[in-house]
Amino acid sequence: MLSRKELFKDTLRKAAHAWKRIVELRLTEEEANLLRQYVDQPGYVDLHWGMFVPAIKGQGTEEQQQKWLPLAYKFQIIGCYAQTELGHGSNVQGLETTATFDPKTDEFVIHSPTLTSSKWWPGGLGKVSTHAVVYARLITEGNDYGIHGFIVQLRSLEDHSPLPGVTLGDIGGKFGSGAYNSMDNGVLRFDHVRIPRDQMLMRLSQVTRDGKYVHSNVPKQLLYGTMVYVRQSIVADASKALSRAVCIAVRYNAVRKQFGSQDGGPETQVLNYKTQQSRLFPLLASAYAFRFVGDWLNWLYTDVTQKLEAKDFSTLQEAHACTAGLKAVTTSVTADAIEECRKLCGGHGYLNSSGLPELFAVYVPACTYEGDNIVLLLQNISQAASQEEGFYERSPDLLEAAVAHIQLIIVTKFVEKVQQDIPGHGVKEQLQTLCNVYALHILHKHLGDFLATGCITPRQGALANEQLGKLYAQVRPSAVALVDAFNYTDHYDGDVYPALCEAAWKDPLNETVVPEGYHEYLRPLIRQQQLKLSRL
Amino acid sequence: MLSRKELFKDTLRKAAHAWKRIVELRLTEEEANLLRQYVDQPGYVDLHWGMFVPAIKGQGTEEQQQKWLPLAYKFQIIGCYAQTELGHGSNVQGLETTATFDPKTDEFVIHSPTLTSSKWWPGGLGKVSTHAVVYARLITEGNDYGIHGFIVQLRSLEDHSPLPGVTLGDIGGKFGSGAYNSMDNGVLRFDHVRIPRDQMLMRLSQVTRDGKYVHSNVPKQLLYGTMVYVRQSIVADASKALSRAVCIAVRYNAVRKQFGSQDGGPETQVLNYKTQQSRLFPLLASAYAFRFVGDWLNWLYTDVTQKLEAKDFSTLQEAHACTAGLKAVTTSVTADAIEECRKLCGGHGYLNSSGLPELFAVYVPACTYEGDNIVLLLQNISQAASQEEGFYERSPDLLEAAVAHIQLIIVTKFVEKVQQDIPGHGVKEQLQTLCNVYALHILHKHLGDFLATGCITPRQGALANEQLGKLYAQVRPSAVALVDAFNYTDHYDGDVYPALCEAAWKDPLNETVVPEGYHEYLRPLIRQQQLKLSRL
Repeated sequence: MLSRKELFKDTLRKAAHAWKRIVELRLTEEEANLLRQYVDQPGYVDLHWGMFVPAIKGQGTEEQQQKWLPLAYKFQIIGCYAQTELGHGSNVQGLETTATFDPKTDEFVIHSPTLTSSKWWPGGLGKVSTHAVVYARLITEGNDYGIHGFIVQLRSLEDHSPLPGVTLGDIGGKFGSGAYNSMDNGVLRFDHVRIPRDQMLMRLSQVTRDGKYVHSNVPKQLLYGTMVYVRQSIVADASKALSRAVCIAVRYNAVRKQFGSQDGGPETQVLNYKTQQSRLFPLLASAYAFRFVGDWLNWLYTDVTQKLEAKDFSTLQEAHACTAGLKAVTTSVTADAIEECRKLCGGHGYLNSSGLPELFAVYVPACTYEGDNIVLLLQNISQAASQEEGFYERSPDLLEAAVAHIQLIIVTKFVEKVQQDIPGHGVKEQLQTLCNVYALHILHKHLGDFLATGCITPRQGALANEQLGKLYAQVRPSAVALVDAFNYTDHYDGDVYPALCEAAWKDPLNETVVPEGYHEYLRPLIRQQQLKLSRL
Repeated sequence: MLSRKELFKDTLRKAAHAWKRIVELRLTEEEANLLRQYVDQPGYVDLHWGMFVPAIKGQGTEEQQQKWLPLAYKFQIIGCYAQTELGHGSNVQGLETTATFDPKTDEFVIHSPTLTSSKWWPGGLGKVSTHAVVYARLITEGNDYGIHGFIVQLRSLEDHSPLPGVTLGDIGGKFGSGAYNSMDNGVLRFDHVRIPRDQMLMRLSQVTRDGKYVHSNVPKQLLYGTMVYVRQSIVADASKALSRAVCIAVRYNAVRKQFGSQDGGPETQVLNYKTQQSRLFPLLASAYAFRFVGDWLNWLYTDVTQKLEAKDFSTLQEAHACTAGLKAVTTSVTADAIEECRKLCGGHGYLNSSGLPELFAVYVPACTYEGDNIVLLLQNISQAASQEEGFYERSPDLLEAAVAHIQLIIVTKFVEKVQQDIPGHGVKEQLQTLCNVYALHILHKHLGDFLATGCITPRQGALANEQLGKLYAQVRPSAVALVDAFNYTDHYDGDVYPALCEAAWKDPLNETVVPEGYHEYLRPLIRQQQLKLSRL
């Protein structure tokens, strides 16, 4: 476990090394992306490539792209995405930072009027970025035109010092032993910082030399395409993270033995216990369910993109709602499921060497970023429902309805998948079993809703529950094979205990037999001669 | 965020300082305990006082207590509690470490026959303890008499080096940025380590000079009293941890504003949103529910202890089952609730400065230690039910039944509480509202079970749900006062944003404006002149 400073410096080192290899090997953008995925720590590079560059590509004019992208591609500038503020998250329209046009100098004045308007959270901002795409309220001729993006230089390209009027730093330690602590999420305040007018991202709208706000003829819907893309990749990531957690838990539960011995014989594999199965196998089924719905979303994104290029916006709204809802449900379920997998590994799941604490810590922000899950689900439904009086009163129920709708999509896509031809001996049958587990598990979990609405009878509910138990027995023999199919090769040999020991002995505390601090703080206790003062 | 070594050394420093003050101020044992609670990091001291000393008190003879306790009280020896093994947790009867009596030398030979028999997890073992109470299978005259406790010296009192035959170390990094990383949970293997016969803890049974295993006349049930004590204090701790998390979340939700603004006016406090209320207020009600059931358990423990002293074991079994079940339910609910409170604080809940990530990381082991929650619940019910064929097949359902039974106890104790006189204007009414929230929330969560068993009709279920919404509206005005009553004074002023900023600027990464590693890893990237090799 490294200190914050060590972790951060280590990320800088890894990123620089990866870049060196990318240049030396003359990798294409796609190849470079793959290489970067092997750098296992979150870092500034993710935001530079994942948010800064796409923002300029999506919201910048051709001219702006030609100016800024080559600099970004060569890392001659490093960028981040400064949207969220200390007091404002999911509600982008509530941002307070202002960009006021000054026709006298043909510049925008970027300013943080309050403490709560401080930019807060952007990854890469704290210590690294030289530039940011900053979102601010555009004010010109005394009118507030709402939130727009601006390219703002933050630090000197000569010596990395913050430019005049720019105050920035890191926002401090985060969840976990490592996780996002390798990332310099930042805080940023502007004190009347001036930028040229042409650093406003102008694809959709711009301000003329004399201060007029004008729209371009580019349809606004094009921007939603990016949001659909980002969220569909979050769903794909949910499936990956869940697969990894389930893989660790299933393998461990196959190795771990406990209770059930007769006359000193070997204990029983814990994977054989019905209580473990009823917690673990629905998660295994969910990992497959999310993979298939992720594949479908990927197809949907491609389809929407092609239609957008042909100026056909007919499927955009539904795709947008689907991806937002699926993002919310899959990330929430995955975060809870990783923690459940951790608990299913007993005490050892609490050790970092199990892989699960860090998987959890690095995963949970997905529930909040790119739209808080609850907010996303409510936006779905608030678009669909006419917002009559009482909408917010009923919102907890509507939230449950939205989740149910998304669950129906997931089950449907799983059912569609197992109706197709699937290669491999017996694979289709196993996936059919998992599909049934997934569907019946959802039914069991929300039994009250099914019964209350009369969709099923108590007798049917009991039968479904009984059936679920039988399905678990069918999953049991192939459980390990089903997680092996995820292709995680770490410790696939099942030698859990030697691996735990090996990791333990590598801990820095084991560098010396007698610990640092012994002579200072322990020996004086143990060797004390004079303790008559104490009444103990 | 400190490195593992820094964290650990810091705990040694704090413990030594606390002890110095305890001696200087001539504190009583009770006063010293209070002082130690202010040392906010888990450390070896907790196990020395909380497990090693009580084990000797509970399982040692008068003579053994007179020999060992004064040494422990003065820290001339430091002890830990070495029970759990790498391959064996909840099933104590499965432990593999052996203590074989050798009549030739009048000694026990302590031995770890396999890798999985390595002692694993004991706090304070890794780097600090000089002694341990070690649990091992007692073997004499060729017979295995099962698990017994032995006092074993591990390290030299002269130079702290491990004694011959003893291999030990730390088991590595754990969940969180700090949490239990300040603790030296350890691994320990014995290679035929010899200890005198009188270092077996002999209150219940002993081995005679010639190797006969004999029971004392002390009733075994006396030991259960300790288990009841430990678990009732875990329930009390659950209530404290949950109160703390709910307090942070309610205060933040009262300050945080989002959406709902009309024409640029101020946004709405998020605590006013029904979706936040429906997630947060049941947790607030749970914090009170756990406090009251904890008070009752404390009374139950006192009652059982008095009866035990009079050799009356009549209420012991029920008390044992109640505390085990309540331990399991309250710790599971609390762990999930802390994480839910964290999510209810949006992005800021992911920052360590919110207090919630570390509260979670330090809390979750409670679900596993002192008996895995699922195992505990199944033992309840397996004692009650005759273990007919099919018990394990039906175990997931029985588990749900056990949880329901425990929930009934919690609701009952809450109802009993609000039937008493409660001082303070309006306090009783507010507690009555929370009691209703708690009960109806449980009903809503398990609606399927209530409907399936015909306990309520769908119409009643819908009415209960409607009523729950009305109750939330009643809780809303007093929510902040209800958490203020928990008496956590940190940041009670509600100045969330300045506090977050203040914490951020203290991060080690902010010690310098230009980060360590800039000249080595960033400047070469940004200032590169030669990038023609790249195809990007």
